[in-house]
Amino acid sequence: MKKVSLAVIGATGMVGRTVIKVLEERQFPVDRFYVFSSKRSAGDTIEFCGKEYLTEELTENSFCRKIDIAIFCAGGEVSAKFASIAAQNGCVVVDNSSHFRMDENVPLIVPEVNPEDINWHRGIIANPNCSTIQAMVALKPLKDKYGLKRVIYSTYQSVSGAGLAGWSDLENGTQEAFSRRIAYNLIPQIDVFMENGYTKEEMKMIDETKKILRQSDLRVSATTVRVPVFCGHSESINIELKKPFELAELKKILKGAPGIVLMDDIENGVFPTPLDAEGKDDVFIGRVRRDESVENGINIWCVADNLRKGAATNAVQIAELLI
Amino acid sequence: MKKVSLAVIGATGMVGRTVIKVLEERQFPVDRFYVFSSKRSAGDTIEFCGKEYLTEELTENSFCRKIDIAIFCAGGEVSAKFASIAAQNGCVVVDNSSHFRMDENVPLIVPEVNPEDINWHRGIIANPNCSTIQAMVALKPLKDKYGLKRVIYSTYQSVSGAGLAGWSDLENGTQEAFSRRIAYNLIPQIDVFMENGYTKEEMKMIDETKKILRQSDLRVSATTVRVPVFCGHSESINIELKKPFELAELKKILKGAPGIVLMDDIENGVFPTPLDAEGKDDVFIGRVRRDESVENGINIWCVADNLRKGAATNAVQIAELLI
Repeated sequence: MKKVSLAVIGATGMVGRTVIKVLEERQFPVDRFYVFSSKRSAGDTIEFCGKEYLTEELTENSFCRKIDIAIFCAGGEVSAKFASIAAQNGCVVVDNSSHFRMDENVPLIVPEVNPEDINWHRGIIANPNCSTIQAMVALKPLKDKYGLKRVIYSTYQSVSGAGLAGWSDLENGTQEAFSRRIAYNLIPQIDVFMENGYTKEEMKMIDETKKILRQSDLRVSATTVRVPVFCGHSESINIELKKPFELAELKKILKGAPGIVLMDDIENGVFPTPLDAEGKDDVFIGRVRRDESVENGINIWCVADNLRKGAATNAVQIAELLI
Repeated sequence: MKKVSLAVIGATGMVGRTVIKVLEERQFPVDRFYVFSSKRSAGDTIEFCGKEYLTEELTENSFCRKIDIAIFCAGGEVSAKFASIAAQNGCVVVDNSSHFRMDENVPLIVPEVNPEDINWHRGIIANPNCSTIQAMVALKPLKDKYGLKRVIYSTYQSVSGAGLAGWSDLENGTQEAFSRRIAYNLIPQIDVFMENGYTKEEMKMIDETKKILRQSDLRVSATTVRVPVFCGHSESINIELKKPFELAELKKILKGAPGIVLMDDIENGVFPTPLDAEGKDDVFIGRVRRDESVENGINIWCVADNLRKGAATNAVQIAELLI
């Protein structure tokens, strides 16, 4: 495998740090390694594979040197300003922000689901929203076998989805990331409100689901809620399939699907919780049961580490598809 | 208003204590007052309206004296054993346990929803499950105006729903009430599992919803989840109505309905959280928005204090209907 020159943008943030950890763990074949940050964090040292790297301030000239792949983890504004510059300089961007996700010229990829979309990128590939990624891993094998008609998400999202400030709000009782106290409380708002009454997070889940599964007529709704959990997003997903199913067969399909760990043995009290998913790269599925209130309905419970599979790991997997 | 002789069974538990507080607040017209507990807690003193009462051990002879109304808050086994004895002695039982709820000879009442069911009681009236009660207050005005076709619940239930042991598990890191750590975690299991893969709590919500709304053909599904919140249950409810609606009119109907406080002004960041509901008797509704994925669909977010409206207040309201 050829080695690549790789840059991580936003290396000092929560996702950036996790990307670096995942690159190490997966022994990503790095030749030259660069870490970029805002002016504020420039000069910080970052350790990668036993060596120390100095973070540089990201500027328009940062991509003049040869960089094969850049993983952007610095938020939408930075991606909007610098991703195209990177692409114009021959670098392939894997972008964690939401900025390019719904751009029809930009593939939106979950490697277990639509790896083939890598083929039509034009220099920028988008990493989906954290809560979307784990749902896609769960829904894809069901779509392939039974077809999907309607999906209703209710999420239970951890504070690390809001970065270091979100983490601090739960740990220290600050109110930097959230509008209310999150400790021992719930906040049924993630990201800003849109005109239709949905939050941007809810619309991301709805729109990205259709794009990734290439099914524009899929009926999707979402309610996204912040919960006082540090790490790991959970989702109660109600699914209407197109075709009838046998529950045992459906579980077998989930169990055999890439990226899924089926934790579903209620007789022995087995189901996934955020603690089970923390630090893991898989999507954990449990509580799989028939929903008798609709034809071909099921309910599932889906948990994943939002910093890893929901962000860093998925981005690194996309980079792996490129080499 | 005539004064009644009233007993609280299970007076030292979390719901029992709250019942006594609510009776005081609402100036329930009590003549004689009795408090009963298990043998273990017998002899404890309980304060009610400035006087101290000694808790007595509940026995088969406890109802030989004249007691008009007994509010049972001691769990299903105690209700199974003693509620009928109380009723045979001319006492009317308001029972917080799940034991009699689905008995066709026992009315299951939310006073804002089906107060008329008080008329056919035979000595025992059941108080619904905490998560059901708040949903009923929200759904009833929608049923009356538009009709209900299908309801999908995903709940976010606080630890106080599991009593003092549940509270301790979150506060002190014990594992008395729950099978896993609940602090900074979620547990997608409330009550025991049934053969169909649902928990008993989920089946309670499904069955009780149909009974209270007197609509056996209503299609209902539920996923119930314990969250690290001390007090206040929250619910993401996806509703399919029978008739078309205007969103503004639907919100107006919710706002004017008994027992509901509409907290729904997203432009000003207004929506309910468990902290908003704590210590209150109302059901708080927010995030009301059209679900475009189905005809006549809406999503709502519903929060209430599970110890008060979800248990004690509703029981006291039922007792008020009796006098």
